[in-house]
Amino acid sequence: MYRTHTCGELRIENAGQTVTLAGWVQRTRKLGGMTFIDLRDRYGITQLVVDDSAAAELKETADSLGREYVIQATGTVVERQSKNPKIPTGDIEIGLTGINVLNKAQTPPFTIEDVSDGGEELRARYRYLDLRRNPLRKALELRHRLAHEVRNYLDGKGFLEIETPYLIKSTPEGARDFVVPSRMNPGQFYALPQSPQTFKQLLMVAGYDRYFQIVRCFRDEDLRADRQPEFTQIDCEMSFVEQEDVLDTFEGMMRTLFRNVLNVEIPDPLPRMSWYDAMDNYGSDKPDIRFGMKIHEITGKVQGKGFSVFDSVEYVGAISVDGAAEYTRKQIDELTEWVKRPQVGAKGLVYIKYNADGSFKSSVDKFYTPEELKAVADYMGSKPGDLILVLCGSRRKTQTMLGVLRIEMGNRLGLRDPHNFAPLWIVDFPLLEWDDETQRFYAMHHPFTAPKPEHLDLFYSDRKEDLEKVCANAYDFVLNGTELGGGSIRIHEAEVQQRMFEVLGISREDAEYKFGFIINAFKFGAPPHGGLAFGFDRVCALFGGQETIRDYIAFPKNNQGRDVMIDSPSYIDQEQMDELFLASTAKKDNE
Amino acid sequence: MYRTHTCGELRIENAGQTVTLAGWVQRTRKLGGMTFIDLRDRYGITQLVVDDSAAAELKETADSLGREYVIQATGTVVERQSKNPKIPTGDIEIGLTGINVLNKAQTPPFTIEDVSDGGEELRARYRYLDLRRNPLRKALELRHRLAHEVRNYLDGKGFLEIETPYLIKSTPEGARDFVVPSRMNPGQFYALPQSPQTFKQLLMVAGYDRYFQIVRCFRDEDLRADRQPEFTQIDCEMSFVEQEDVLDTFEGMMRTLFRNVLNVEIPDPLPRMSWYDAMDNYGSDKPDIRFGMKIHEITGKVQGKGFSVFDSVEYVGAISVDGAAEYTRKQIDELTEWVKRPQVGAKGLVYIKYNADGSFKSSVDKFYTPEELKAVADYMGSKPGDLILVLCGSRRKTQTMLGVLRIEMGNRLGLRDPHNFAPLWIVDFPLLEWDDETQRFYAMHHPFTAPKPEHLDLFYSDRKEDLEKVCANAYDFVLNGTELGGGSIRIHEAEVQQRMFEVLGISREDAEYKFGFIINAFKFGAPPHGGLAFGFDRVCALFGGQETIRDYIAFPKNNQGRDVMIDSPSYIDQEQMDELFLASTAKKDNE
Repeated sequence: MYRTHTCGELRIENAGQTVTLAGWVQRTRKLGGMTFIDLRDRYGITQLVVDDSAAAELKETADSLGREYVIQATGTVVERQSKNPKIPTGDIEIGLTGINVLNKAQTPPFTIEDVSDGGEELRARYRYLDLRRNPLRKALELRHRLAHEVRNYLDGKGFLEIETPYLIKSTPEGARDFVVPSRMNPGQFYALPQSPQTFKQLLMVAGYDRYFQIVRCFRDEDLRADRQPEFTQIDCEMSFVEQEDVLDTFEGMMRTLFRNVLNVEIPDPLPRMSWYDAMDNYGSDKPDIRFGMKIHEITGKVQGKGFSVFDSVEYVGAISVDGAAEYTRKQIDELTEWVKRPQVGAKGLVYIKYNADGSFKSSVDKFYTPEELKAVADYMGSKPGDLILVLCGSRRKTQTMLGVLRIEMGNRLGLRDPHNFAPLWIVDFPLLEWDDETQRFYAMHHPFTAPKPEHLDLFYSDRKEDLEKVCANAYDFVLNGTELGGGSIRIHEAEVQQRMFEVLGISREDAEYKFGFIINAFKFGAPPHGGLAFGFDRVCALFGGQETIRDYIAFPKNNQGRDVMIDSPSYIDQEQMDELFLASTAKKDNE
Repeated sequence: MYRTHTCGELRIENAGQTVTLAGWVQRTRKLGGMTFIDLRDRYGITQLVVDDSAAAELKETADSLGREYVIQATGTVVERQSKNPKIPTGDIEIGLTGINVLNKAQTPPFTIEDVSDGGEELRARYRYLDLRRNPLRKALELRHRLAHEVRNYLDGKGFLEIETPYLIKSTPEGARDFVVPSRMNPGQFYALPQSPQTFKQLLMVAGYDRYFQIVRCFRDEDLRADRQPEFTQIDCEMSFVEQEDVLDTFEGMMRTLFRNVLNVEIPDPLPRMSWYDAMDNYGSDKPDIRFGMKIHEITGKVQGKGFSVFDSVEYVGAISVDGAAEYTRKQIDELTEWVKRPQVGAKGLVYIKYNADGSFKSSVDKFYTPEELKAVADYMGSKPGDLILVLCGSRRKTQTMLGVLRIEMGNRLGLRDPHNFAPLWIVDFPLLEWDDETQRFYAMHHPFTAPKPEHLDLFYSDRKEDLEKVCANAYDFVLNGTELGGGSIRIHEAEVQQRMFEVLGISREDAEYKFGFIINAFKFGAPPHGGLAFGFDRVCALFGGQETIRDYIAFPKNNQGRDVMIDSPSYIDQEQMDELFLASTAKKDNE
């Protein structure tokens, strides 16, 4: 061992001890004849001192040290004269008797500080240096701690972690697969799993009762912001359970994580909200309930007063923004432009200012009397000083826009503190979504999601209105406006499954082709089962108080799916291509 | 929840309780008017009884049950009249009041028993049914337990589990990579990692100090028996350590696994054996030390007596087989044929029988007097009744053949009890291997393995004989004749690394091309570091007392790299190929 202690370990109680530390030189500074060295490792920073009276050789070595040099240093722990209360080792320093330079270092291309001077691209290229910074170290330590707590909790509940294969089979449904050419089976390909869904259901058929896995998944999607081609799931499945059992088990898991990792107590039981309420009140199936500002339907209050825009639509809805009545014309114009951007897609924005003096000012003053506006405000629970923002159009679309606007106003008003946690379950999702274009139903989750038992009658109805009302035994875990996980009770009865295919317009032959393998497995005694999966990268980021996952992944890829540190993907040798029976039809960059 | 208890839970103390169980019908039998049902789940088997006096409907349902039906059964726990001491629930049975058939089952194509009547291929195709059998369930439970204990131990030692990417870059060295075509980067490929070696060393450069990961690795090799294209490693790396620290840490890990999982105490400290001793005494770098039968060099004892076969070789070696002097001529002929098979490759076998009466009988009687044979026997520590088996040729080759013969004799004599565990470390490997054909040195492990500090002088010598003597700071963990893990202290100094490339005949340009990325990273302050990796599949198998890993992997592939259950790899759509800018040059099966 090159050290007796870590750089985060020594305290005033150690004064007088001879110790050896090893680590990286964070910085050096000269003060009079003395040289101070901040030595850093994963565990902390300890101040080293080379005294004016030290041996010439030692002083020379100390003066030669550059940033990020790796050294081993021996000396005596002494109490500091000027203590540093900001770091746990701040009461002491090491009076050095020797320095052994283990490795010199080139000057890093950016500073290794909590806030670095390096740009994103540069830091990505030198990820191994960026990872030296405290925020990234803490992110990965948090990730380790969360994974460990997940495993302890699930192990304690009788779950087995079972590894499922990564070289599997390409499926014709769902997102795009990454594929892996097989050399031993010319012309054939494996696929990397988008999730272990099939395998975890097979493990239930096999009687494993409670399965989990912290597992990598792969999706060859065009990358939107903050998506990774490979990501990690906490994947779980249980047998002989109903929805209540699954919610109970994983609510307990999340409660344990919050308690053990963040020392935060979340409500017991967690709030639950139906998908319908979430859409109606928050315009989102992943509502951020850290703040109110609920959406109110005011269609009945505003129609029939001669304002043709409102009169001609299915739905008029509004949010009331606390204390924003003082927004200027310019601010409201800017908001109007904001909602008209294609990302939101509103046609316009109506406002109603409920001024502090109790008077009203709105963009539709000529259609509504102050009394009518007050009736709307009262209905919404607004008070003087609030600003009411109104959108209209078709119901769900408008609600969604209001939901986006609500989040934006929450951000602007500072209502979304990332260290305030408001988790909840969203339940009672519709089982089916009607698509006007193709004039058929699609499964909102996937075709193996079970309808609620109490809705089976509706499920067997031939009427579209009935089928639209069928709720699924599906659930999402939502935290602060982000969906962290979701799952469902699966259909385990052949007859119900057959009905599902029928409703989705999938013929027996098609079902056999697309899902035959799993349907066959189910014929040998499938238990009732259900489960869910959490997006682990996102769990880590949110627990860390961040919105983006990239800092919570040791070696992430950029938005083009590239690892710029190792420069991957890359071209491979023709010989390798030949062995795989492959030819490329792509033009090379240099052609 | 479909049950109040599991099928492994109820005891005599529960008598009188009303319970509901759920599971699979293992078997039913009728006895008089009663029907007995063995209900199985992951936790055990519980006997259910439908009485003669039960309701007609219940009796009818009970009689209709087939093997592997999934049922929910309610009734009262009663003490059994004839108890079954073989199972933990054997004192009780459930007097049923109701059965709910949750799912019927087709008759499985083989029996779900500890020893099934199904062939390997059939069971592989229905892996989800094979996994219902106790031996496989126990194997996967053991695997879960081992992984969990590994994580607890390493977490307790300050290791962080850090996930490294699966989509990385193809490297020109080492075994063949599986590659993944990139759609977003036409013509370019990712590679699946053969191990996270580069990334774990980067994590050390990044200051993470103690890293581990239970991680999938991929190798596109022609599959020998009991190899899998994807396999799992316990991968570890530590900074500021010397070899002793690594051995100490992971010896502790294995001791904890043996103690907590198998309740077995292994020696403290573990035996260590130099690579040279292992080769000389066991003819193997992974010696099985559960039994003696060491190899003895007898070159000096047998040369110069006129037997030209011995006189003309570099080395004559022998093993003494306890109590095998009674082997018949036929048995010895068979052994001779056995060593002459190409898998062993000996030219012939000389035997010396040390008969129980003290007389000698050998295949080389005409060259050696009984006294000379006795001198050999005495030298080897043989006693009357033993059989001495002699091979000759070049030193290492002959030792290796004797090593294979020794293992075979150990098997024949029943000396290799899989539930007897004899772990040890192999240390002091040669750093370099000379290759006569290419007239150059190769790295025995990899070019980043550090020479022992005390051999640095030899390492800088220009003489081949000196370089051959340089030992590496490398180590293997060996259990019962199998290498379970291995690793090394890495070179962290640029100068030593440069010397290594020089010795291996790798030019600066070549080194830059092949290893440039990691060499550059090391320039920014690499700490001294080292680590190792265990083959987790094999750890599981050996802990389970098995030699083959296949039963310890939930969904393994066969020797052609195929998953016969999901029928993968398979052909993909032309559309998918087009998107990936790929054309296949393989002929399809049906072309």
